[in-house]
Amino acid sequence: MRTLADLGEFGLIERIRERAGSPSSRDVVLGIGDDAAILRPRAGEDSVVSTDACVEGVHFDWSIQSGRSIGRRALIANLSDLAAMGARPVGFTCALAAPPSLALRRFDAVLKGLLEEAQAWSCPLVGGNLTRASRLHMAITVFGAVPRGRALRRAGLAPGDRIFLTGHLGSSALDRLRAIKGGGSLRHIPVPRLEAGRALGRMKGRRACIDLSDGLGGDLGHLARASGVGVEVDPATLPRTRSFTEGCRRLGFDPLELAVSGGEDYELLFGLDSRLSAAALSRRLNALVTEIGVATRNPGVRGLPTESAWRHW
Amino acid sequence: MRTLADLGEFGLIERIRERAGSPSSRDVVLGIGDDAAILRPRAGEDSVVSTDACVEGVHFDWSIQSGRSIGRRALIANLSDLAAMGARPVGFTCALAAPPSLALRRFDAVLKGLLEEAQAWSCPLVGGNLTRASRLHMAITVFGAVPRGRALRRAGLAPGDRIFLTGHLGSSALDRLRAIKGGGSLRHIPVPRLEAGRALGRMKGRRACIDLSDGLGGDLGHLARASGVGVEVDPATLPRTRSFTEGCRRLGFDPLELAVSGGEDYELLFGLDSRLSAAALSRRLNALVTEIGVATRNPGVRGLPTESAWRHW
Repeated sequence: MRTLADLGEFGLIERIRERAGSPSSRDVVLGIGDDAAILRPRAGEDSVVSTDACVEGVHFDWSIQSGRSIGRRALIANLSDLAAMGARPVGFTCALAAPPSLALRRFDAVLKGLLEEAQAWSCPLVGGNLTRASRLHMAITVFGAVPRGRALRRAGLAPGDRIFLTGHLGSSALDRLRAIKGGGSLRHIPVPRLEAGRALGRMKGRRACIDLSDGLGGDLGHLARASGVGVEVDPATLPRTRSFTEGCRRLGFDPLELAVSGGEDYELLFGLDSRLSAAALSRRLNALVTEIGVATRNPGVRGLPTESAWRHW
Repeated sequence: MRTLADLGEFGLIERIRERAGSPSSRDVVLGIGDDAAILRPRAGEDSVVSTDACVEGVHFDWSIQSGRSIGRRALIANLSDLAAMGARPVGFTCALAAPPSLALRRFDAVLKGLLEEAQAWSCPLVGGNLTRASRLHMAITVFGAVPRGRALRRAGLAPGDRIFLTGHLGSSALDRLRAIKGGGSLRHIPVPRLEAGRALGRMKGRRACIDLSDGLGGDLGHLARASGVGVEVDPATLPRTRSFTEGCRRLGFDPLELAVSGGEDYELLFGLDSRLSAAALSRRLNALVTEIGVATRNPGVRGLPTESAWRHW
């Protein structure tokens, strides 16, 4: 079995460079291979920057996940942050740390997943770093652009604003629990809501926005605290698919609890000061949009069975 | 002893946020605390982006290094990449992975070093990520800005160009060997050549540039290959201090070999198509500048005892 050590640092960099290709984007002047990448901002745009790490044994586990899925998800977590700001992707860097004994086959699969997802969203790999470590560790930094002063933020919700959510809740969490309990590997790959985020950013009356990475309970709390308001949710409205509900029952989980506390949904949670119906919003954002509650003067999140969020520590 | 686990993820984020403060830079619209940071590019500037990782047991070792020095060096490695592009710093993110059992005292010291160095170069912390890992791991991404189309690159050296170097060689390597052999801790902290890099970027006749992170031998090779030329060096000219030479003798190392193969110098190595003397260059770059060789048509690096570079793997 060939390992990373067989190729060495420079061999691997060359391999990554070949597979990544040269970015053909007008945003990227210089990609991989120099001391730094050069991006060319467009007039009238702000830059948006987010960093996320993906660590073996913490965020992923080879026993229930393919390398390709590990790579795709690592980038999706970052792209979702751009979506939550209403930004378009420009490029990303990856600081990759791995054991020299890692099978090249696994490395290639992770790289494939990363680059596939990058290509799907026109977000080229523009640089990175390779180092040795005892476990695989990817720190991804993603760059985006947004019309000047128009980024969606967590703060900005006002009492009376209606609270909405894209998509359905809990699919990632259920998929993970199914794989852990029943064996097999992860099947569900979330979609970063980049299109919906950009459309929302252009709308009148749009307020605060966050992506669901830690679970609805926790992320609603972040949104409310950043805005200095409270949120009241009607749990009956929370969007779940029938197959999610059935899957929960089969595995012995409470569907509502899992929908609220499960992480990695990567849906957008946002507030709106407008009379637009959820149906009209769904058309505008090109995604299912559900109204789930309202912002209130009293701090805190009410109406959820628990505010428990995914905790990394 | 208090550890990271006592504060938890959100407690630590709050601690970092308090200590980092709000960036007062006009480049930063939004710092820590949202899904992403917002930077505002200035008209007529390109963005420069570089990522470096700093891993416990690979890049640093608690037994010979203070937390403050670990933090400072982690950022310096990145700032040096900006210097090599002729860029000014704008801000940085840090994806920090650490064991929950890490002493809070150590964490605070690393953070102090990071933020001290950041403040010295007006490069505020604008975001990041915290996660659990078996060893301390920092992946830093640094953002800079450079006048449009004026970034210094590795490619661009032409036969006949004179090759120059800022500062002295080998101090970091000797300091590390001294600490490992003789006990005690690291004393030497390199200086990122940001001022020299920006001055060089403005000069007529400036060609390719790289910062010395892997050692002169390796980095000269990078520069020559990127430009498709060779380099001929006069080893007698390589700038070393008397105390470096004496230190090498005392510890039993060949001064020339250590100067060429030692890493973490963070000096700038660059080519120039101009008649400027090294003395005139020293004044312009506000740093000692030494002429060490010339670019040639024949590929390869000649005149050095070895082309061995620091290898991470």
